[in-house]
Amino acid sequence: MSKEIRFTRRVPSGDDIERSICDRCGFVDYENPRIVVGSVATWEDRVLMCRRAIEPRSGYWTLPAGYLERNESPEEGALREAWEEARARLEIDQLLGTYAITRISQVQLIYRARLVDPDVAAGPESREVGLFAWDELPPPDQIAFPSVRWALADFRASASAPLFAPHARTDEGQGGP
Amino acid sequence: MSKEIRFTRRVPSGDDIERSICDRCGFVDYENPRIVVGSVATWEDRVLMCRRAIEPRSGYWTLPAGYLERNESPEEGALREAWEEARARLEIDQLLGTYAITRISQVQLIYRARLVDPDVAAGPESREVGLFAWDELPPPDQIAFPSVRWALADFRASASAPLFAPHARTDEGQGGP
Repeated sequence: MSKEIRFTRRVPSGDDIERSICDRCGFVDYENPRIVVGSVATWEDRVLMCRRAIEPRSGYWTLPAGYLERNESPEEGALREAWEEARARLEIDQLLGTYAITRISQVQLIYRARLVDPDVAAGPESREVGLFAWDELPPPDQIAFPSVRWALADFRASASAPLFAPHARTDEGQGGP
Repeated sequence: MSKEIRFTRRVPSGDDIERSICDRCGFVDYENPRIVVGSVATWEDRVLMCRRAIEPRSGYWTLPAGYLERNESPEEGALREAWEEARARLEIDQLLGTYAITRISQVQLIYRARLVDPDVAAGPESREVGLFAWDELPPPDQIAFPSVRWALADFRASASAPLFAPHARTDEGQGGP
């Protein structure tokens, strides 16, 4: 059924930006940027990471994160993703960073969080999960996305701060993740 | 043409959440939460506000804010909205708050900002704009949305802080905006 879908780029009436409009039914896909929520979560200075079992970047290490769902707050979404991907229960501390991946219209809201207990296990989208000391983190070439490296660096830079303004990064001019 | 569009709620294959699927072409509308970006922008302790010329809440006062567009960072979006709605040029300071309006699947990222100069003017979506001292702000019943009141209160609470963790609010259990 999906093979029948064709969208044409044109400006809808009353708008001033070109949108994707379905040739068959006239549906306007506003293609809003998507929100990814996740966390850098620690247990006694060790960081929770997940080895991806799904594409993209299957086999690479990432932070527990994923798309915010409807009717969900960002904090709820970050807690849900930690459970889904790592069977981890978290307490959120504060927003660590906002990372704009403008090339793919994605805004990531990554929180600083603490694990409630060290019991973690791979969920269906993870091959394995682990709690890593800073000097034992997976090497950069085994990290799934640049934004994961940004979050780890920002976490480390703010690790001793009781509170801080969130870090803000964008892929503009950097080639992007 | 838009009258012909009908969506049915069902779970697509490979998914576990009910989505809106077009009856005619099979397009799956994932209906991701939408991002609103905006600012509490000041010139010498006076806050920039806009009186809306469009629905919803036409005639009520709001902060310059609107939907983030594709391939745009949140900071760029906040600057664009300030220009579109108030012909205002800003410098962003830091993220003031994240406001989740879960009832309508909206996440607002509102920045603390300074006006570069006090020259402001109503854009096409504003009836008028103004720079208000704290004791001259429009009364609460003339404010367009609860989240505008949240942002003004959070701004005031953080006004003297050189940096701070962003405020986080959600409409859960509050009836929402």
